[in-house]
Formats: sequence, structure tokens, C-alpha cells
Amino acid sequence: MDALKQAMAAAAVDVEAMLVRILTAEREAEDRLIAAMRYAVLGGGKRLRPFLVLQASGLFGVAHTAALRTAAAIELVHCYSLVHDDLPAMDDDDLRRGRPTVHKAYDEATAILAGDALLTMAFEVLAHPDTHSQPEVRCALITALARAAGAHGMVGGQMIDLGAEGRDMGIGEITRLQQMKTGALIGFSCEAGAILGRAAEAGREALRGYAHDLGLAFQIADDLLDVEGTAEETGKAVRKDAALGKATFVSILGPERARSQASLLAEQAVTHLAIFDKSADLLRRTARYVVERRV
Amino acid sequence: MDALKQAMAAAAVDVEAMLVRILTAEREAEDRLIAAMRYAVLGGGKRLRPFLVLQASGLFGVAHTAALRTAAAIELVHCYSLVHDDLPAMDDDDLRRGRPTVHKAYDEATAILAGDALLTMAFEVLAHPDTHSQPEVRCALITALARAAGAHGMVGGQMIDLGAEGRDMGIGEITRLQQMKTGALIGFSCEAGAILGRAAEAGREALRGYAHDLGLAFQIADDLLDVEGTAEETGKAVRKDAALGKATFVSILGPERARSQASLLAEQAVTHLAIFDKSADLLRRTARYVVERRV
Repeated sequence: MDALKQAMAAAAVDVEAMLVRILTAEREAEDRLIAAMRYAVLGGGKRLRPFLVLQASGLFGVAHTAALRTAAAIELVHCYSLVHDDLPAMDDDDLRRGRPTVHKAYDEATAILAGDALLTMAFEVLAHPDTHSQPEVRCALITALARAAGAHGMVGGQMIDLGAEGRDMGIGEITRLQQMKTGALIGFSCEAGAILGRAAEAGREALRGYAHDLGLAFQIADDLLDVEGTAEETGKAVRKDAALGKATFVSILGPERARSQASLLAEQAVTHLAIFDKSADLLRRTARYVVERRV
Repeated sequence: MDALKQAMAAAAVDVEAMLVRILTAEREAEDRLIAAMRYAVLGGGKRLRPFLVLQASGLFGVAHTAALRTAAAIELVHCYSLVHDDLPAMDDDDLRRGRPTVHKAYDEATAILAGDALLTMAFEVLAHPDTHSQPEVRCALITALARAAGAHGMVGGQMIDLGAEGRDMGIGEITRLQQMKTGALIGFSCEAGAILGRAAEAGREALRGYAHDLGLAFQIADDLLDVEGTAEETGKAVRKDAALGKATFVSILGPERARSQASLLAEQAVTHLAIFDKSADLLRRTARYVVERRV
């Protein structure tokens, strides 16, 4: 196993342990809700966003617990968004990470509530003193997460995406949609390291640039997997975009140009990291990983 | 108009103005989402929770903007919970505040996303420096709101409530359910004033006790309205609990005993306020109001 995969696997184990600690049922009556939350969160996944938090935090000497709690909070938000996006009224997906989606394994009402509770919990985790000794840093994290995840970020992007079925969209429009839908949270994952480490503006700016290109490269790769991957590989239904008549980077550029665009963005992402020494090497490799991955 | 009604109406106007300010579309693409959020939030309502925040804040000399922003944040959470609770997969309600519910006026996907965005926005509002100059106070508000609204509070209560249809429940169980489902957020509304004002423990404790009894009295009155009120008065469907075979305070105690229990709780709520002077008079009157109201 190469160094990146090893580091990602180790980070996933750490994050999983933190998530288990957070998602403990305090009282019996909420058992079904907490069980659904655990099902949504502990079902594996690449843990890419937590990995980015940990790596970006590493650049600024952030304490491990602080980085790990922040990573867990972002993963809670990511998982809540998957639970809600999979609902019948939204993308109507039955399969996620190779298992039935939450509303299939439980029911729709439980899926809605589990998502709500996961989102709420993310903010509780960030507000806790264990996440950072300085409350202004915790508030900065909360502000940035709310912006990335809310009406002008992830949720707004999903809203535009739902209206995009069968509609003609240009590359500019798709780029903006994806920048909101997936890019904003990936961006926050990288920036969180800089916030936790009270980094100078140059470091923050570099990570923002990196995350921007990484997020787009990641999305193009996702679109390619939807066209070229199998449900076995990806753990979710494929060929959905074409079936819904959704414009994607691949439907507009074609697979060849989409692939080279993704590679270009990955290279471009790496150039933003020039101000960092070899401590940013795994972030550099991550840029290549996101375009080469098969899951 | 008596002093309480006047004060409640004035508070509602202030809160509405703050909510309008918060819910401004920054970009055109999110128009439909922001419109649904505004529809959910600006549709009137008693604004009881914001009123409690403002009154409790008044006991400790909290700045008006601080109290108002906190009040708005709580109202965002309350409104998100109504939007999600009204969904077909949950309580399946078509009418709210005398108008079609959000998923009826828009669609289910939009209602889910609007709720998600409102919840997210509440935390963004609280984390902002305008809410309080001291970040530790903002973090304390966020922690308390997340606990009141999350898996061990409001969302957990709704989860238990969904499982309660047709099930035999005792008074103890119903009390606990309602304490989570509606009591926790009412409790936070009162406690927020003490948090903002950095009140001594005695003041906080008094407000906690007041809010506990007030919340239960409010819920019993709600159950009575479901049995005795009309859709015109309440702006929502009535006789729902009986139709669903849901145990309520009224179904167990009968309307007479339920009414006297609500009055008893209202009186009890007032006794908790003994440590405050006449600055708490409107809170005292609010206790009576919640059991006498027809909406």
C-alpha cells in the first residue's frame, strides 16, 4: 500500500473512532434515531473531507484532537447531506456505499430526522471547548461551515441541481453549481486547517486555491465514474445523470476532454501548494488521487 | 389591546424585520430556495419563542440587537422543524398558519432543503459577532441550541412522537416526549436571555424552572386546541391526534383535568420568577396567556 492510501486509511480509522464516540445513545428512547445516524455515518466511505482537514491541519501544527473533532463535524455534515439527497423526493437513490440508503434501511421520516440531527450535532461538536481552546476560533469554524453548507453553499447547490434535470446548462453554470454543491464543503475542509492553526492569510489563500481546483477535479472524476464505473466499484447507482438528462462536465466535454480537464485541474491544485514544504506532499498526491480513483 | 398583547405584537414586528434582513437572497440562482425559506419563516405565527428570548434578556440588561438576533435564530429553528414535521413522510399536514404548508406551496424537495438551510442559518446567525461581542457567549448559545434542537431534544422528541401512533403511553412518557419535542426549545428560549446576560446561576435556574412548567402548560393547551379549536382559529388541521390514535395529555386526563393541570402548571411557572422584580411581569402574564390562547 502506498503512503497516501496508508495515510488515508489511518485517518479513516481515527475519524471513525471519533464518530463512534460522538454518536453514543444517551437514552434508550432515541435508540432508533441514533441507530439511523450511526448507520448513515459509520458505513465506511472514503473520508476524503476528514482527510483533507487532518492534512491541512498538519501544515500548521494543529493539535490532533482539534483536527479530528473538526474532521468528524465535517463528515457529519457530509453524511447528513447524502441522507437527505438520497430521499425519494430528491435524488431517490436506493444504494449508497454498497448498502441500502437510510430511508430504505429505516424509513423516510427517520431518514429526514437523522439528517437533521447529524447537521445539528456537527455544530455542537465544533462549539465544544475540546475542538479548540479559543472560542473565537470555534466561532470562525462554525461560521465557515454554515456558509459552506447552507443556502449559498451546499444546500443551494443541491437546489439548483434538482432544477437542472433536462435543462441546458453551459460549463460556467455547471462549474458554479458544483462549486456550491460539493466544492464549498471541500473548500471548508481545507480551510478548517488554516482556521484551527490561525494561519497567516497566505497559507489560507493557498489552501482555498488548492481546494477550489481539487473540488472541481473531484466532481469531474465523479461524473466520469457515473458514466464509466460500475455499481460494484462505486457502491451507488450509476448512469443516473444521463437517465435524468442532467448536463454534466462529461456530457458537455465528452469523456476524453473531461478527463484531461480533471488532470489539468489536479496539476493546477498542486501549484497552489508551492509555499509549503514536503509536509504538503500528501495533499499534492491527493490531487492526483481524486482524478484516478475508482470509488 | 392589553400590555402583553401589545408587547408580543411589537416583538413580532421586530423579529420579523430581523428575519427579513437575514433572509435576503444574495444571488439569483437560489431564488426559489430563499423564497421557500422566507415563506416558511415570514408567514406570521405567534413568535412566542422570540418573545421569551426578548423578555428573558430584558431581565439581565442584554443589548437589544443581541437578544433580537438570538430570537431570530431560535425562530429559524422552530420554523425549520415545522417545515420538516409537516412533510408527507412525517405528520403529512397541508395547512399551517392558515396557508398551504411549504411542500404544498413549493414541493417536497424544496421543503426538505429549505428546512436544512434554515437550521444551518440559525447557527450562522448565532456565531456572528453582532450576536454578542464575546465569542464564548456565542459558543455557549450554539451549544445550548444544538442540544435543545438535536437528537436528545426536539428531533429526538419528534422521533418518539412518530412512533407513538396507536401506542399506549402513560403521563410520564408523554411528559418526557413533549419535554423533548417542544419543551427543550422553549427552555432554550428562556435560558438564552440568561446566557446572553451572563446571569448568575440563580437567575438561570429560575428561568429553567419557569420554562419547564411553561412548556408543559403550552403543550397541554395545544392538545386542548386540537380537540376543541377549529382550523380557522388555529390555522392548522385539528382533531389529528385522535384520528391517529395518539395518546395526549387530553386523551388520558380528559379535557377538564387537562385544563386544570395546565392552569396549575402556569401558576407554578410564575412562582419560579419570584426572585425577579416587576421586570418579569410580562413573563408572568405569558404563563397565563399560553393556557388561555385560542391560537
